[in-house]
Amino acid sequence: MTIDLSKIEYFTEEDSVEAVTSRTSSQADERLTVVWAALVKHLHAFAKEVDLKQNEWDAGIDFLTRTGQICDENRQEFILLSDVLGLSMLTDAINNRELVGATESTVMGPFHVKGAPELPMGANISLDGKGESCLFEGSVVDRDGNPISAARLDVWCDNVDGYYDVQQPEIQPKWNNRGIFTTSEDGKYSFRGAKPVSYPIPYDGPVGQLLKLLGRHPNRPAHMHYIVSAPGYKTLVTHSFVDDDQWLTSDAVFGVKASLVAHFEKTPEGNTDWRSPFDFTLVPG
Amino acid sequence: MTIDLSKIEYFTEEDSVEAVTSRTSSQADERLTVVWAALVKHLHAFAKEVDLKQNEWDAGIDFLTRTGQICDENRQEFILLSDVLGLSMLTDAINNRELVGATESTVMGPFHVKGAPELPMGANISLDGKGESCLFEGSVVDRDGNPISAARLDVWCDNVDGYYDVQQPEIQPKWNNRGIFTTSEDGKYSFRGAKPVSYPIPYDGPVGQLLKLLGRHPNRPAHMHYIVSAPGYKTLVTHSFVDDDQWLTSDAVFGVKASLVAHFEKTPEGNTDWRSPFDFTLVPG
Repeated sequence: MTIDLSKIEYFTEEDSVEAVTSRTSSQADERLTVVWAALVKHLHAFAKEVDLKQNEWDAGIDFLTRTGQICDENRQEFILLSDVLGLSMLTDAINNRELVGATESTVMGPFHVKGAPELPMGANISLDGKGESCLFEGSVVDRDGNPISAARLDVWCDNVDGYYDVQQPEIQPKWNNRGIFTTSEDGKYSFRGAKPVSYPIPYDGPVGQLLKLLGRHPNRPAHMHYIVSAPGYKTLVTHSFVDDDQWLTSDAVFGVKASLVAHFEKTPEGNTDWRSPFDFTLVPG
Repeated sequence: MTIDLSKIEYFTEEDSVEAVTSRTSSQADERLTVVWAALVKHLHAFAKEVDLKQNEWDAGIDFLTRTGQICDENRQEFILLSDVLGLSMLTDAINNRELVGATESTVMGPFHVKGAPELPMGANISLDGKGESCLFEGSVVDRDGNPISAARLDVWCDNVDGYYDVQQPEIQPKWNNRGIFTTSEDGKYSFRGAKPVSYPIPYDGPVGQLLKLLGRHPNRPAHMHYIVSAPGYKTLVTHSFVDDDQWLTSDAVFGVKASLVAHFEKTPEGNTDWRSPFDFTLVPG
């Protein structure tokens, strides 16, 4: 066989994007074709803009490899990387543009676990009993303020030591600081738990090393996680943040929004040390 | 403590890049600061351009995690990913712009091993004796055509089954199809080996799945790898490609350049089945 060398589409720095994207088959999935072409374009633009050095490429390969290898069933380092890059919050923003009039969304984070216990209103999710206690309560309503019944609130937070139960399976009780509550016709919810505390994202791995090199701290301001869902409404993934937290202004993963900062008030007469009212507004979807 | 919420720099889709890059400490390494800022800018531009969906982000996290987890001492899936993205060739191009007048460079690939045997000129690197035999010979010269002495040629290639020795440690002899040759004053080199054959890059992992979805084949045209180095000259990483290979026009990793396609001629009278002359030109550096 004779190859006509003049017909080879050689890779050059100038035509690098076209050299790669022209290889995609016309039979490939349309959306994949678009996403892949954009990825190649922006990745090559990055490398060209910074004149990426060979040893920097080597360091990048090594970083990504270590990031993958530290992942296990309880550790998701690529989510952390996405978080500190702001990509998680950007994806959240892109996917929730239509939430006009709803409670604002924020990142899911890597610590949600499916299948938490279904609990009656008022139940206490703090199984280790550590930390200051808090009553969380409010309503789930639609944009007109009407109560939404059968709304599920899947809630989770860290304990007083700053760890989620899945980070300390041999120390914390299973399902510590987790629970699912379902509203009745009045749309109201309430539960007791530990007042969340601020904590560092796991920083003993590649992402922690990166933050250190960037001179960034790894801390997240204290927050309670919520997934609020109801039939006929768009599911909301969000947090409520504790309003006196020192890291509110510099959340390591950029998750804070003004509307998500909840009031926490001391309750000297109550059954708990604190009370935090917070309402959720859902939009149809 | 009271937090002035109006002072929080909230993350928004519009200001997403600034929200992230403004966190970098002024004490951070200057080059890291530049590379990080460019990475965040282009990554966010990618996500915005394609309106990255939440389930696509999920798929990306899963893909990167699996890519990291398949890596081990003999498998480097992130290099393969970089290769099929054209990023490896782009980095090569960026880092070798000054090689004017020299033999062109191409990708190192993931199969080089340091410490191959130092062999005398004319030695046979094919230890399994499989495939068609070939005499590789030529000169290492400077831009004026003067021979370069003490030039080291670190060479490696696959065997007739399309695998490097490190991919088949229990089948192939150690150092099969590898060797290091050093020129004397005439600048000439020669060695015998198997005529390289085309082969697929490892495609039983995430990168192979990606290629399949893109409708791209995983094959590389047959080639001999070279690292050519000499005191006072810039080290050259390159291949010579077999000139009758069907994949020359569509190398899965974009490594082919016209000047690197070597002539392979049948040698009915010789000690080997084939002969391939190829000269290397080095530039000072």
